[in-house]
Amino acid sequence: MGTFTDRYLVEPGEKVRLADFDPRDTKPFGGDKDEGRARVAKLNARLEELQEALYAEGRHRLLVVLQGMDSSGKDGTIRSVFDGVNPQGVKVACFKKPTPPELAHDFLWRVHPHTPACGEIAIWNRSHYEDVLITRVHELVNETCWKRRYEHIRAFEALLADEGTTILKFFLHIGKDEQRQRLQERIDDPKKRWKWNKADLEERRHFDDYRAAYEDALSATAAEHAPWYVVPADRNWYRDLVISEVLVATLEKLDIRLPPGDPGIEDLKVT
Amino acid sequence: MGTFTDRYLVEPGEKVRLADFDPRDTKPFGGDKDEGRARVAKLNARLEELQEALYAEGRHRLLVVLQGMDSSGKDGTIRSVFDGVNPQGVKVACFKKPTPPELAHDFLWRVHPHTPACGEIAIWNRSHYEDVLITRVHELVNETCWKRRYEHIRAFEALLADEGTTILKFFLHIGKDEQRQRLQERIDDPKKRWKWNKADLEERRHFDDYRAAYEDALSATAAEHAPWYVVPADRNWYRDLVISEVLVATLEKLDIRLPPGDPGIEDLKVT
Repeated sequence: MGTFTDRYLVEPGEKVRLADFDPRDTKPFGGDKDEGRARVAKLNARLEELQEALYAEGRHRLLVVLQGMDSSGKDGTIRSVFDGVNPQGVKVACFKKPTPPELAHDFLWRVHPHTPACGEIAIWNRSHYEDVLITRVHELVNETCWKRRYEHIRAFEALLADEGTTILKFFLHIGKDEQRQRLQERIDDPKKRWKWNKADLEERRHFDDYRAAYEDALSATAAEHAPWYVVPADRNWYRDLVISEVLVATLEKLDIRLPPGDPGIEDLKVT
Repeated sequence: MGTFTDRYLVEPGEKVRLADFDPRDTKPFGGDKDEGRARVAKLNARLEELQEALYAEGRHRLLVVLQGMDSSGKDGTIRSVFDGVNPQGVKVACFKKPTPPELAHDFLWRVHPHTPACGEIAIWNRSHYEDVLITRVHELVNETCWKRRYEHIRAFEALLADEGTTILKFFLHIGKDEQRQRLQERIDDPKKRWKWNKADLEERRHFDDYRAAYEDALSATAAEHAPWYVVPADRNWYRDLVISEVLVATLEKLDIRLPPGDPGIEDLKVT
């Protein structure tokens, strides 16, 4: 029994071509923006319940990886999709330019401490994938190194999965023209100007290189236990909808149950 | 060009039989205890130089894993072999019974933060190997799980090696009768009584199970980039000697060079 989000799932072994995915896609949902937003609100309420149960049960762990080019909406996703979720039990880790101590270790060293514990959801805003993306595009490491890292990523995610972590990876797929508009807004709109970073323009020059790097990374690391979704991200409401649908469906499948109270507690009288 | 320590190296792919290794062995060195101790002192002085250069150069990283049954001399090794080495740049991590937060994550989560940074030597007193040893012997995890963990260990150590870490793993091989004497001393000698732990007796009952678990773990995880040495450990001086020889030989091979000063610094006058 599939849902409309299945079409965004990368099959393990599949060679991803991003040109096959329309970043403006919204049709598969079958509703308009208002209907989409209403559906996201419903999913959000369900997500709150499921997260509370996950936390109370303390058995499952969920890792959500968010990747995407500048302005693709990673921050917005966290704000909208996880709106109102109990922050105790949901940890967000944001991976920016590595610090000298981070660079002095292997590339998984800085992410490993941020994996979710039992009962937790960890959301990674960027991740270990940067080490096969920006490092590749800017030739900070050679090809032998970034290719070898695919294998290390697969092994690392297999470790997490084998030891009990559910993994979901979302690539926020934005079109080149949409990115242009969003960056322009950060210049034109005084309220968005705080987001402006002149490095974004330089990164934008490498747009096609990043797409190629993403295609390879997604193809090399999509696994049944660590799936990638290519999320159409030109429309914020649709991006939130797709991610919320996948999250809720995944948590529902975990069959989380609130732990039973102590036996006999129903007869207890507090005096 | 081999040294007498080569005979203690586990060949990758070799099926280790601990019965083939004599824990009382000292002959290959060709000298007696006094000569051995004198040699350790010389190696220790060289180790200090090499570690200083490693730290100053800040390029290589060395991970030393110490495993062995109770009273096999892990603490003693750290005290003797690394005596006088600059503690800045040498970090010892001791892995005891996992805490609840550690148990709430995958088994490599607690060790990964303790890997060495560039310029550092990290010494692990017990390690991630406990998760295929004590957990197996006491059936804390099932066979599928501990067997799968060999693969995760191999992948993890390959990650460290690929990204620049030199790894040395020492199994301190103690005989069953020597262990009996050492544990008895902890009861009889008031100065050693602080080391006594009644759990050691219970563990001793599983001596043969531990040997079997070690044989499998060593066989499954000996790699060129992460070698295991089976160190005869009934004689403390010989144990220290073997480990010091391997350490110094390994560091010599790294071809560590002190970084040159700034160009022109030789003409600089401090006024």
